[in-house]
Amino acid sequence: MSSTASITDRLLAGDRTALARLITWAENGDERFPEALSAVYGRVGQGWRVGITGPPGAGKSTLVNEMARLQRAQDLTVGVLAVDPSSPFTGGALLGDRIRMEDRTMDQGVFIRSMASRGSHGGLAKAAVDACDVMDAFGLDSILLETVGVGQAEYDVLEAVDTVAVVLCPGAGDGVQAMKAGLLEVADVLVVNKADQPGADRLIADMNEAIHVRFLPDRDWEVPVVPCSAGTSFGVEDVLAAIADHRAYLERTGLAEVRRAKRLIQIRQVVDAGLSEALWDRRGFGDLADRELVGERTPYDVADSILKTVLAEISAAPTATGGTPA
Amino acid sequence: MSSTASITDRLLAGDRTALARLITWAENGDERFPEALSAVYGRVGQGWRVGITGPPGAGKSTLVNEMARLQRAQDLTVGVLAVDPSSPFTGGALLGDRIRMEDRTMDQGVFIRSMASRGSHGGLAKAAVDACDVMDAFGLDSILLETVGVGQAEYDVLEAVDTVAVVLCPGAGDGVQAMKAGLLEVADVLVVNKADQPGADRLIADMNEAIHVRFLPDRDWEVPVVPCSAGTSFGVEDVLAAIADHRAYLERTGLAEVRRAKRLIQIRQVVDAGLSEALWDRRGFGDLADRELVGERTPYDVADSILKTVLAEISAAPTATGGTPA
Repeated sequence: MSSTASITDRLLAGDRTALARLITWAENGDERFPEALSAVYGRVGQGWRVGITGPPGAGKSTLVNEMARLQRAQDLTVGVLAVDPSSPFTGGALLGDRIRMEDRTMDQGVFIRSMASRGSHGGLAKAAVDACDVMDAFGLDSILLETVGVGQAEYDVLEAVDTVAVVLCPGAGDGVQAMKAGLLEVADVLVVNKADQPGADRLIADMNEAIHVRFLPDRDWEVPVVPCSAGTSFGVEDVLAAIADHRAYLERTGLAEVRRAKRLIQIRQVVDAGLSEALWDRRGFGDLADRELVGERTPYDVADSILKTVLAEISAAPTATGGTPA
Repeated sequence: MSSTASITDRLLAGDRTALARLITWAENGDERFPEALSAVYGRVGQGWRVGITGPPGAGKSTLVNEMARLQRAQDLTVGVLAVDPSSPFTGGALLGDRIRMEDRTMDQGVFIRSMASRGSHGGLAKAAVDACDVMDAFGLDSILLETVGVGQAEYDVLEAVDTVAVVLCPGAGDGVQAMKAGLLEVADVLVVNKADQPGADRLIADMNEAIHVRFLPDRDWEVPVVPCSAGTSFGVEDVLAAIADHRAYLERTGLAEVRRAKRLIQIRQVVDAGLSEALWDRRGFGDLADRELVGERTPYDVADSILKTVLAEISAAPTATGGTPA
């Protein structure tokens, strides 16, 4: 399609409108997106992607704004993607600050976008990866992906990034809760924001102990606990330095492999969704399930027999040339 | 397993501890759950399941508490399942009110539980259906499933219920946003809470117009717009009456078919998850994808060729006896 070719050409030429359009395609799962991504894929891989997550109220938005400001001062181009899996409402509080930030400076070096779950039909994590890919191909040096909450959907979205910064603060979502929720396991950098408030020293000490003693004994990367106060810009440079350290660590120990592993997760999602569509929407598994759903058979019973049928088909198939797994 | 049999016997005998245990199994995707559900499935289908959803701040929790109180006064047993897909933190604000409510009365006719996304590994919607099933088998007359937000995960959870009540209020998440977000499409009953506040009349009028004119022309069921003020209990009886009307409508027009359709969605989820596990974790599709992920091939390109391989296998398989779809 000529429109796909022209939009990818414009993206590579630095046209922000084309970038916005391609992110919309990613968000909507537009059928033209895979071809567009192919056309620009050679340019993907230069930008550094940082996920910023943590409980509501931890000050993630303020921190992201401040990080973007400091990176612009270093002449880096910055993309901000604010992702809210818990809401189909676009905009609102999430985007308000950012629009003001962009308007104020009319800065062509900052690109800001929010994504909500509306229109993504459950594929928000994939849409976020796709959006990061096009921001990356566009040439943004730093891509900051901020989540609103800390649920499973947010964790899935974090598969898109290179470095995960978990933001905590005294009071809102304390350290014990963060441990229980598995937040420490996903963190590459632990930020204790509002470090000038009561309870911050205790939280920092708790997090240092948790990191060193209990949670991550097998990882080579020692997760730093970085105090800051994004509202006054205190410590935000330290956060950026910790992220740079993590980047250097990954580049030293095999960044390509890490990113490849993330790509495999993406591939699995696309294959599984395509397989589901092929079996249910095109091959009539729904009718099969309907016939088997009789009497007091539970959905689990029915699912089990359908699964056996399809797996038997695959096992019985002749070995395909060159591609069938052992 | 004797433990599974004894726990289901205890559930059917009215043991609340057994109910709590089985919901935990559902939440964790415990491998004993399917067998346990089979054992009690004959008792599933008596309780009425109501989903209460809407934007944060609309007053859902207050409404649910008041609905439960009124239903208890009618001598109905009530289960409350508060579901928060946006947080892996259990308890907190979500559960606080409810624990107080249960403690205060020591009422054996109310069962309260919260579910967060922690531990559910993305399968929160399935876990919610499973939890409703065991609450239903336990014998609760009314099951109130409350969501925290209004994102895709919440919409998925609502597949578990018979009647969806969407709660709006003046100010928080206005009518236009609700329409854009597709909230009206999922509503069986539209509740305008805080109906004594400024803007309520306008919101009620807008919603009535939206329902009648623009959104649901093809449905037999005319979605009622019910004003209430849960804080003062005003109108909550009307909400319950509207839900009873919707129940009567479904029972008249084919409740069994509606519930069957929901079961099919569940079956699809279980089959798809099982198929994904079989192909990737046991049959080495990951290695296949890894071999194909070369050069500038995008994840979409690789997914496409894997998908073609597996679908060719299924098409090439000999027709299974008695179960293969056309």
